[in-house]
Order: sequence, then C-alpha cells, then structure tokens
Amino acid sequence: MECVFCKIIKGEIPSYKVYEDESVYAFLDINPVNFGHTLVIPKKHYENMEEIDKKILCDLIKVVKKIGGAIKKGLKVEGYNINLNNGSVAGQVVPHFHFHIIPRLENDGLKLWDQGEYKNGEAENVLNKIKKEL
Amino acid sequence: MECVFCKIIKGEIPSYKVYEDESVYAFLDINPVNFGHTLVIPKKHYENMEEIDKKILCDLIKVVKKIGGAIKKGLKVEGYNINLNNGSVAGQVVPHFHFHIIPRLENDGLKLWDQGEYKNGEAENVLNKIKKEL
Repeated sequence: MECVFCKIIKGEIPSYKVYEDESVYAFLDINPVNFGHTLVIPKKHYENMEEIDKKILCDLIKVVKKIGGAIKKGLKVEGYNINLNNGSVAGQVVPHFHFHIIPRLENDGLKLWDQGEYKNGEAENVLNKIKKEL
Repeated sequence: MECVFCKIIKGEIPSYKVYEDESVYAFLDINPVNFGHTLVIPKKHYENMEEIDKKILCDLIKVVKKIGGAIKKGLKVEGYNINLNNGSVAGQVVPHFHFHIIPRLENDGLKLWDQGEYKNGEAENVLNKIKKEL
C-alpha cells in the first residue's frame, strides 16, 4: 500500500495545505493536539532521520521556522513545540519523515515528560557510548 | 545574569560534552528524560526560532541528525524524539535555543499528547489565519 503522505502530496487524498514549494509540503494534522497543529514533510519519500538528505532536512527546518512564525501571528499564540518522532518506538506512526509544529496555549493542560537524573558514573558511561559512534 | 548555556559553551560551567564544532555545541541534559538525552545548541546566543539565523539552524539540525544516529548505535535504541520548546508557554526554560534529542526505549512509559479533531469549518478557519501570515 502506498504511503498516505505521498498520496496527500499528489492530491490523491485531500489535505488542508498550509504551504508548498519544490521540496516541502505542509498541511494541518487532521487530529490536532491543539488547533493549527501542522505537519511539515519532504515531497520525496524518506522514512526517517537516517534516510533523509541533509539539504532537504535544511529546507524542511527553514519551512518549520517560517510556518512557526505564521502560526504565532495568525493564531495569536505565544509559542509552539516542534517534534520529530523518529522510529515507531518514538511514536512515529506514518513512515514518511514529518516535523510536527504544535501551537501552545496557556493552560492547555499539556505537560512535558518528567525528567530524571544520573547517578555516579552513569553520565560518563552514556557519553562514551554516544561519542564513540560520532 | 548571564545565560547558563553561554556559560557551558565557555566552559565556565562543566558539561558532558557530546560534540562541538565552530557553530554548534552539544551536551548531555543533566536531568534526562531517558539516559543519553542530549541538547544541541548554537554557540552564538539566540533565544528562539524567531531570532535564530537560518544558516545556523541548518547547522544545528544536521548535527541533530548526526548525534541521533550515534545515540541509536551507541545506546542500542530503535528511535528517538526531537523536541524544540519555543517560548515559555511551550515549556522552554532556558532562553537559549536548544533542540532536545530524547532516546526512546520500548515500554519507557512515555506517551505523546492526546490528539483531538476539527469540527465543521474549524480547520478552514485555522488554515486561513496561518496562511495569511506566510
């Protein structure tokens, strides 16, 4: 079965299009966390951060910046979250790379995840494991 | 009082440095959502998405991609979330632009926000408000 986001780009599935250029397409998430929740995607199909071309990634994040500003002005909100869920373990449902822009409102009831702490030696251990793959 | 992240970049406050180049600095969040939670920041002080230079934004997201890959390999995780909290209403605490990379584990107990839906005409209304600011 073909990718649902590829079908949206081609117009085979309707969408509330926010923005389009030669490499990027943006549309309203039809199940918004808050109204104005927008998805910004590459027109070419890349599944995830591992696959995506660096140039296209730059194109995408610049469009995120542009639309984020328009959301702030147009919806009169003070801020927004940008999310990328990379991999199904991270909550990625559609296997086509997509940034979420989620407008935020005072007292919208959303909260960020709880944060913990490192104990003796744990941070160094983690750091070394990451750095050896860079 | 000077920005805490600017102090980290200058080495005036210690950090678990993951990566550094001419424009980008990355280090472990000392209060991780999951171990390996990394912050990727511009060396030059920009408060938010509105302020940041587009070239630096590209530099940052390419480093996010690079470190994300290293986190997957080094920590043997299947995926991660990228978050940017833009504005205090969105949970931004330190007023220095920063991407979060949060490694994800099966059954780590974290869940994404609940999503809603648009009723008749609401999506069109929101769409028009955003598009007129683009």
